[in-house]
Amino acid sequence: MSKSNSLNPNLNKLQKKASFKAVEYYVQGIREGNRIVLSQAITIIESQHTAHQALAQEIIEACLPHSKTAKRIAITGAPGVGKSTFIETIGLHAIQAGSKLAVLAIDPSSQISGGSILGDKTRMQSLSSHAKAFVRPSSAGETLGGVAKATRASIILCEAAGYDTILIETVGVGQSEIAVHAMVDCFVLLLMPGGGDELQGIKRGIVEMADIVCINKADSHQKVQAETAQKDFRNALHLFPPKLNNWTPQVLLCAGLTGLGIPAVWATINQFFEVVYQNGWLEKNRKDQARHWLKEHLEYRLKAWFYQHPEVQRAFGTLEQQVIAGKISSFHAAEQLLKKALKDAV
Amino acid sequence: MSKSNSLNPNLNKLQKKASFKAVEYYVQGIREGNRIVLSQAITIIESQHTAHQALAQEIIEACLPHSKTAKRIAITGAPGVGKSTFIETIGLHAIQAGSKLAVLAIDPSSQISGGSILGDKTRMQSLSSHAKAFVRPSSAGETLGGVAKATRASIILCEAAGYDTILIETVGVGQSEIAVHAMVDCFVLLLMPGGGDELQGIKRGIVEMADIVCINKADSHQKVQAETAQKDFRNALHLFPPKLNNWTPQVLLCAGLTGLGIPAVWATINQFFEVVYQNGWLEKNRKDQARHWLKEHLEYRLKAWFYQHPEVQRAFGTLEQQVIAGKISSFHAAEQLLKKALKDAV
Repeated sequence: MSKSNSLNPNLNKLQKKASFKAVEYYVQGIREGNRIVLSQAITIIESQHTAHQALAQEIIEACLPHSKTAKRIAITGAPGVGKSTFIETIGLHAIQAGSKLAVLAIDPSSQISGGSILGDKTRMQSLSSHAKAFVRPSSAGETLGGVAKATRASIILCEAAGYDTILIETVGVGQSEIAVHAMVDCFVLLLMPGGGDELQGIKRGIVEMADIVCINKADSHQKVQAETAQKDFRNALHLFPPKLNNWTPQVLLCAGLTGLGIPAVWATINQFFEVVYQNGWLEKNRKDQARHWLKEHLEYRLKAWFYQHPEVQRAFGTLEQQVIAGKISSFHAAEQLLKKALKDAV
Repeated sequence: MSKSNSLNPNLNKLQKKASFKAVEYYVQGIREGNRIVLSQAITIIESQHTAHQALAQEIIEACLPHSKTAKRIAITGAPGVGKSTFIETIGLHAIQAGSKLAVLAIDPSSQISGGSILGDKTRMQSLSSHAKAFVRPSSAGETLGGVAKATRASIILCEAAGYDTILIETVGVGQSEIAVHAMVDCFVLLLMPGGGDELQGIKRGIVEMADIVCINKADSHQKVQAETAQKDFRNALHLFPPKLNNWTPQVLLCAGLTGLGIPAVWATINQFFEVVYQNGWLEKNRKDQARHWLKEHLEYRLKAWFYQHPEVQRAFGTLEQQVIAGKISSFHAAEQLLKKALKDAV
């Protein structure tokens, strides 16, 4: 936990600076669209400290009735594909078209190095400084469960603050995309133009999630490759089963750096929302997502309870040593520990 | 659960064919190196049925004392990189060099389509039919936890059956690589030669895991690209922090199809094992892994208990409906449900 918080400079700052205010302070500030208060509230939500969690809970419940209107959009792609520039360009375009835009990031990526996207403060400079945008750097965390929970709650707060478009950036191709897919309406996959290698490392499951595939960096000198990739993808997507949302995935060319194709991408995103609103999928999917998150949060909290159980804490070390010594299997030791916490129930 | 088993044709066959034998039958068969019995036992381990799990547990405990000698090696790479051909070629080479080889696969990949690697029975034909090899098609499962548990247990059984080299194939770049990294000693990453795009989609965390990077398909017409990739990777790996095992990751060129460089890859794998055996890391790492798996199995079983709790089952539907209707947050509902199962303890 200390690791998690030490990776969150905002929280350290907040802890050093002052004690927390009452829930009303945060809720009022958020509803007034005060970005500093919104940012403070998200920092509280990201905290692992028990003392902060009760306050976080109250803030979330108070914001919940105001949180159902935004377009929730995932922007996913491998490192180097140009997500950051793409988000800055399409974000400014969306604002010009009348949106209020929040950008969040989810990145529990590398368990070895720790990962951080949006961490570089020089990124998305125009967007960050725009009055109608809120850009939140990634919170690093130890578990996908913890990071996902914080991101989910941050969506609620951003929506209560009046942001009608929320972009959630993820760093590529793994379990975090499954988590983010479960919290957005529209899934945008960014790819690079490349000679048949576009899909290297992109799992089939990720491509299947995509509602809109954008071949980024489709500038002049990569135009031919990009068009080939576009054709290949259109063909490939026809081989997939139809999507539950009855939307036919679109493959578009764009370039975040020059703005090429960005208005068309934004128009397609809006078209997507019209289609899934009309056919009822948007509402149904949000219900399914609520179900999903209930389970996620349950399991996250259940584990925390278990490991803090006194009898588990007492017995854990000895059983662990027996597993390490190869005397019993980890399966067998797990059963013993479950019995400690759950008594005859297991 | 029914889904999981319906995806496992072996289990259906087994269930139709006969009732299960006593634990001694399986343990004796496994220790005699009987591949049919080994395969049956793995099928029991993969089953989600409670009735099978007690038997599975007994088989595992009985095999455990005989399971600590094999080289456990992960073979990872994106779809299309040529893992299957690589494994067939290096597997036959290893057998010629005196090994007894088991190949397992872990693939909980796509939550939408369900995923399966090694599923195609025409793959690895020479290896599958070799007397000194055991090739086990992937078990599909609903959760990474379930699939990982089955794979972990399968390793124990294969080692008890006398296989001294175990290759675990995974399909690329995500959470399953983190799981497989936690069950092997040596992590081999396969990449394709490509103009700077080798790393597209490979997360930094995956590359950091690699002990040996193989640029596959380094045949004549891709030789130059492959050599460039090799040089780039050698440079890149120098930028990473030193590995805990004190092994300097090697970047090799090979071609599974022609056998080019395969003996060198096998020699490097053996060199890796000599180094980490000598410096004590192999033993230390296996202890760390035992700790890790204890936690994994605990959490997997804990969740199963929770959802089967009568009071949770009674209250779940109503609270879920309130979450779906947006009346309470999923966080709040999760707390209520925890109280049902854990009473005053939470």
